[in-house]
Amino acid sequence: MRKVAIIGIGITKFGELWWSSFREIFMEAGIRALEDAGVSGRDIDAMYVGNMSGGQFIRQEHIACLIADQAGLNPIPCTRVEAACASGGLALRQAVIAVASGMHDIVIAAGVEKMSDVLTEEATGALASASDQEWEAFVGATFPALYALMARRHMYEFGTTEEQMAMVAVKNHDFAARNPVAQYHTKITVEDVLKSPPVSTPLKLLDCSPISDGAACVVLAPAEEAKKYTDTPILVAGSGHATDTLALHSRKSLTRLDATIEAARMAYQMAHLTPSQIQVAEVHDCFTIVEIMAIEDLGFCRKGEGGKMTEEGQTNLGGKVVVNPSGGLKGKGHPVGATGIAQAVEIVLQLRGEAGKRQVEGVEIGLTHNVGGTGGTAVVHIFRRMD
Amino acid sequence: MRKVAIIGIGITKFGELWWSSFREIFMEAGIRALEDAGVSGRDIDAMYVGNMSGGQFIRQEHIACLIADQAGLNPIPCTRVEAACASGGLALRQAVIAVASGMHDIVIAAGVEKMSDVLTEEATGALASASDQEWEAFVGATFPALYALMARRHMYEFGTTEEQMAMVAVKNHDFAARNPVAQYHTKITVEDVLKSPPVSTPLKLLDCSPISDGAACVVLAPAEEAKKYTDTPILVAGSGHATDTLALHSRKSLTRLDATIEAARMAYQMAHLTPSQIQVAEVHDCFTIVEIMAIEDLGFCRKGEGGKMTEEGQTNLGGKVVVNPSGGLKGKGHPVGATGIAQAVEIVLQLRGEAGKRQVEGVEIGLTHNVGGTGGTAVVHIFRRMD
Repeated sequence: MRKVAIIGIGITKFGELWWSSFREIFMEAGIRALEDAGVSGRDIDAMYVGNMSGGQFIRQEHIACLIADQAGLNPIPCTRVEAACASGGLALRQAVIAVASGMHDIVIAAGVEKMSDVLTEEATGALASASDQEWEAFVGATFPALYALMARRHMYEFGTTEEQMAMVAVKNHDFAARNPVAQYHTKITVEDVLKSPPVSTPLKLLDCSPISDGAACVVLAPAEEAKKYTDTPILVAGSGHATDTLALHSRKSLTRLDATIEAARMAYQMAHLTPSQIQVAEVHDCFTIVEIMAIEDLGFCRKGEGGKMTEEGQTNLGGKVVVNPSGGLKGKGHPVGATGIAQAVEIVLQLRGEAGKRQVEGVEIGLTHNVGGTGGTAVVHIFRRMD
Repeated sequence: MRKVAIIGIGITKFGELWWSSFREIFMEAGIRALEDAGVSGRDIDAMYVGNMSGGQFIRQEHIACLIADQAGLNPIPCTRVEAACASGGLALRQAVIAVASGMHDIVIAAGVEKMSDVLTEEATGALASASDQEWEAFVGATFPALYALMARRHMYEFGTTEEQMAMVAVKNHDFAARNPVAQYHTKITVEDVLKSPPVSTPLKLLDCSPISDGAACVVLAPAEEAKKYTDTPILVAGSGHATDTLALHSRKSLTRLDATIEAARMAYQMAHLTPSQIQVAEVHDCFTIVEIMAIEDLGFCRKGEGGKMTEEGQTNLGGKVVVNPSGGLKGKGHPVGATGIAQAVEIVLQLRGEAGKRQVEGVEIGLTHNVGGTGGTAVVHIFRRMD
């Protein structure tokens, strides 16, 4: 397999983008990525796009064809990939495989979702179709409810507190306030989180990521040719993807995501790296408890110590590993299909040293972690500077 | 890139399978494919699944996770691919790339769709989301209407007749009557087609493929290891994928699908073969006019002569190239996400000499052609015997 590098990135503002259409936000991210890579549409050999549910959110399937058309890139092959909220991460992985195989050279991996064109309850219903429709969604178990079960069990088994969960939200809002594309620029306190309205106890409004519109895009090239395009190519050193049962009731444990553990194992092995070498990570924090479980499952601390690690500031600037400097899904926003690619965009910015006020100093190795459903899918990528 | 071969196939009955769920039909096809390949679930490294719209048909996204779970194959990576009615063909292509790259060895490519659990008008609406929602579907242009425009123009430019289109349906029903898994076992006449109720003139009911449930599955392996598993591995000699504009009004021509022409060019080039060497083909005949355009665009005859070629019997047994011996989408049925894989299943059966009463004698090279939307996506694969 050929090694693969990222030579360009682009991202839109995340938020409720009522003044922009699905097509427009994809185009904005795509054009920025091409400009950043210094390539034109003619250089692109293929495209992969992560999108969770164009069908339910904007009544549009055949998304890959739409964006190839809109971008004027016909007849290049363009493929839509879906794995619920991990659709973006999985699109990146398929694009990496396509370049690694030699089938294509310059390949775009994009993610896009337009969620605000439907009513909130419709969006919640569409999101619930990422859980097990027959065993979970049908009986009214929405995602906050499912993750609340996991939070409750994590509190019971390990003594994780609501304050510790709140600290995830506080940190990620702090970071988001320094990220121009983030949905929220509002700093919050632990007390704000604890006093916010209950959604599904113990999860409160400020434990939850929002419904968002947004798009993100990266341009990939064979690593050996990457320096032709940019002085700071970022190697995709490792890629892992794993599945678990769709429904929570079939899991061995409610306090870990086995798909994350397996996807991380694959990515670390491919990158010849260990968890202690990761300096910066974008992890899937659709709810605050999910970041706590993620830092455990990715090996940044021992199982059960994610709350303590957060409380001690070990996931903040100056800590052991800086987690979600973009603001994460919680602060930056969570346009579900775009999230996995947006994570890669942030890690590339960090490794290039271009992350502005939220820059983590001197980082050379970063990781992204993207989850679908309640952990039925996990995708992990590891990135490093090439110089 | 490594060469890739098919070592096992499985397919369900196509039709209105009210007594089976989405999960069950996938499992049935999958188990048959594993049995056929002589492998067990433990041997499978990854899975790709084509599905057009679980979200709209059964309110279930995250399809790849669901089927990995249902098959007991967690934690293997499983990826859903969507390109409307070309979802199956595109899943096959991604699986081929994954094996070719060296990322995975034994990989399943599957396709599945459950369309009969919603009302027919809802299914038509879901299918319309494969066209351009903003410019076509929103104003009521359903697929029969869009393809009727193309049929009318083909008649105008080349003198293609309604009788010639009817002959496609007659041939494909004849074949379907000999295919145990086909939805229809009813032979029809040209007169039956011409007298059937108009759907969108000049297309009548019997010019249209049906709404179907079904699943199909193939097992891929590196070609150099394929003989370990089967005496008759079938090489995936060529693979092509191309896009065109989503909406018809942006096309250069209404009488050809440029995506088919480009995808075929890629596949022929990779296989080092020419159209005249193809002996048997499964082409996308969602409407009869589409088979006529396909045999032209694939190079089996000159543009405009598809109607004549059909009338002369050159696409039937004993003809230049036997087209849709499975019965095609028209006779076998069209569970949209499954169709591209079902086409590969038929070609494998034909090249193995296991196609029973519809066997085309002495064939060694076959082709599949899968279209999404009105030609916004086309995927072409070429297969050949390895001995």
